Amino acid sequence: MSIEKMISEHPAVGDGYNESLGLAVRHALYCAAVCNSCADACSGEVMEMQRCIRLCSDCSDICEATYRVASRRTDENRAIIREMLALCIKACETCAEECEKHDHAHCRRCAQMCRECARDCKAAMEELQAEAA
Amino acid sequence: MSIEKMISEHPAVGDGYNESLGLAVRHALYCAAVCNSCADACSGEVMEMQRCIRLCSDCSDICEATYRVASRRTDENRAIIREMLALCIKACETCAEECEKHDHAHCRRCAQMCRECARDCKAAMEELQAEAA
Amino acid sequence: MSIEKMISEHPAVGDGYNESLGLAVRHALYCAAVCNSCADACSGEVMEMQRCIRLCSDCSDICEATYRVASRRTDENRAIIREMLALCIKACETCAEECEKHDHAHCRRCAQMCRECARDCKAAMEELQAEAA
Amino acid sequence: MSIEKMISEHPAVGDGYNESLGLAVRHALYCAAVCNSCADACSGEVMEMQRCIRLCSDCSDICEATYRVASRRTDENRAIIREMLALCIKACETCAEECEKHDHAHCRRCAQMCRECARDCKAAMEELQAEAA
Repeated sequence: MSIEKMISEHPAVGDGYNESLGLAVRHALYCAAVCNSCADACSGEVMEMQRCIRLCSDCSDICEATYRVASRRTDENRAIIREMLALCIKACETCAEECEKHDHAHCRRCAQMCRECARDCKAAMEELQAEAA
Repeated sequence: MSIEKMISEHPAVGDGYNESLGLAVRHALYCAAVCNSCADACSGEVMEMQRCIRLCSDCSDICEATYRVASRRTDENRAIIREMLALCIKACETCAEECEKHDHAHCRRCAQMCRECARDCKAAMEELQAEAA
Repeated sequence: MSIEKMISEHPAVGDGYNESLGLAVRHALYCAAVCNSCADACSGEVMEMQRCIRLCSDCSDICEATYRVASRRTDENRAIIREMLALCIKACETCAEECEKHDHAHCRRCAQMCRECARDCKAAMEELQAEAA
Repeated sequence: MSIEKMISEHPAVGDGYNESLGLAVRHALYCAAVCNSCADACSGEVMEMQRCIRLCSDCSDICEATYRVASRRTDENRAIIREMLALCIKACETCAEECEKHDHAHCRRCAQMCRECARDCKAAMEELQAEAA
C-alpha cells in the first residue's frame, strides 16, 4: 500500500505530484498511530508518565488532522496546509523532547518517529513556501 | 451536558478555569460536526460543490484536533494550543468565506458556525497570549 | 447551534428527517468530547486510573466515528449505521460501568453522559430496525 | 516505522504479542488514509461519485476508530475490539463493492486496500474469538 501512489492518482494531480508533501503525509499518518500507541503504553507504565501521555495524545491528534488535510488535492488549500505543517512540526518536536527523557523502548521509538515526521513536514513546508514565492 | 463543566472538574484546574478557552472548545466541537455534515450535504447537491466539500472537510478535521487538544488540562501544552487556535481561526474563516457564496441553508448555517468558532478561538488565543506576556 | 437542524437541511432529507437518529448524533458528539476530557482528567489523578483512561479513550474514538457516520445523509449506509450504533452502545456502557466505580466528579459526569448516549443510540437503532423490517 | 513493533513494546505485552491483531491495526491505519484520499479524489472527478464519497468517508472514519482502539494494550477491552473489527470488515466490504464499480485508478487501489483490510480484520477477529472460547 502506498498513500503516495493513491494521492498521485487524484484527477487534479497530473504531472504536478508533490513528492515532499506525499512523504510528509505518510509520516504524519504513521506518527499519529505511534503517538496514540505511546500514550497507551505510557499509561501502562508503573512510573508517572502524565506529561508524556498528554503530549503524545496532542501530537497524535495534530498528526491525524495533518495527514488528512495534506493528502487532499481537490481545489487547493495551501495556506492552511502550510500552517498545519508548521503546527505539526512543533507538536512533534515537543513530543520528541519529552519522550527522549524516558528509557522505555516505546518512548525511544516514538521520539524517533516524531523527529522524522517533523523533518519531513519541514521539507514539505519549505517546498510549498518556495512555490508560493 | 456541558463540556465546560467537565473540563472544570479536572484535578489540575482548581480556581484557574479558563472560560474563554472552554467556550472555544465547545464551539470547535460543534463546528467539527457542522462542517462534517455540510461536506456531506454539499456532496448531495446537484450543482458543483467541490471547493466547499474540500474546505468543510479540512475545517472539520482541524476543529476536531482543536477541541481535543484544547480541552486537555493535564500538565500543559500552551504554545501548541495557541498555534492550534490560530490555525483553527484560519480554517474557519476560509470555510466561512466559501460557504457564504452558496444559497443552501446548510451552507449558511455552516458559515455562521465557522464565524462564531473563529471569534471564540480568537478570544481564547488572546487571553492565552496575555497570560504568557 | 444545532447539529440536528444542520442534518435536516441536507438536500436528500426532505420530510424524512429521523429525529431519534439526530438525537443520537448529538449525544455521540458530546460523549466523544466528554470521554476525551475524562481520559485526560483521569491521567491527572494521583490514584491509578489506567483502566478508566483506556475505556474512556476507546469510547471517545467510537463515539466520534458514530456521530460522523450517522450524521451523513447522502445516499444511504443504514446497515453500517445500525452496527455502528450497536457498537457505540456497548462502548458507552462499558465506559459507564468503569466510571461509576470512581468518586471523581469528572467520572460521574462521564458515566452519566455515556448512559444517556447509549440510551439514545438504542432508540435510534430500534427505529432503524423497525423501518428496515 | 512499524506500528506493530511499537505495540509489542507496551509494558503489558511481554510474550503475548498478537500478530494477527497487529497486522489488522496496520492495515486499518492505511485504509483510513486511502479511503480519506479516495473520497477526496472522487469529489474531484467530473462524473457523479456521491455514493462512493459517502462510503469512503464512512469507511475512513470506522478504520480510524478501529486502528486506535485495537492498538491499545493497557488493561483490555476485547469484546469491544471484536465488534469493532466486525464493523470494520463490513465497512471495508461495502466500500470495496462500490469502488470496484468505477474505473478510476484511485478507486481500484482503494477497493484493493479495503479487501486487504477486511481480510486481516477477519483473521484477527477469529483469533480473538478462539482465545475467548
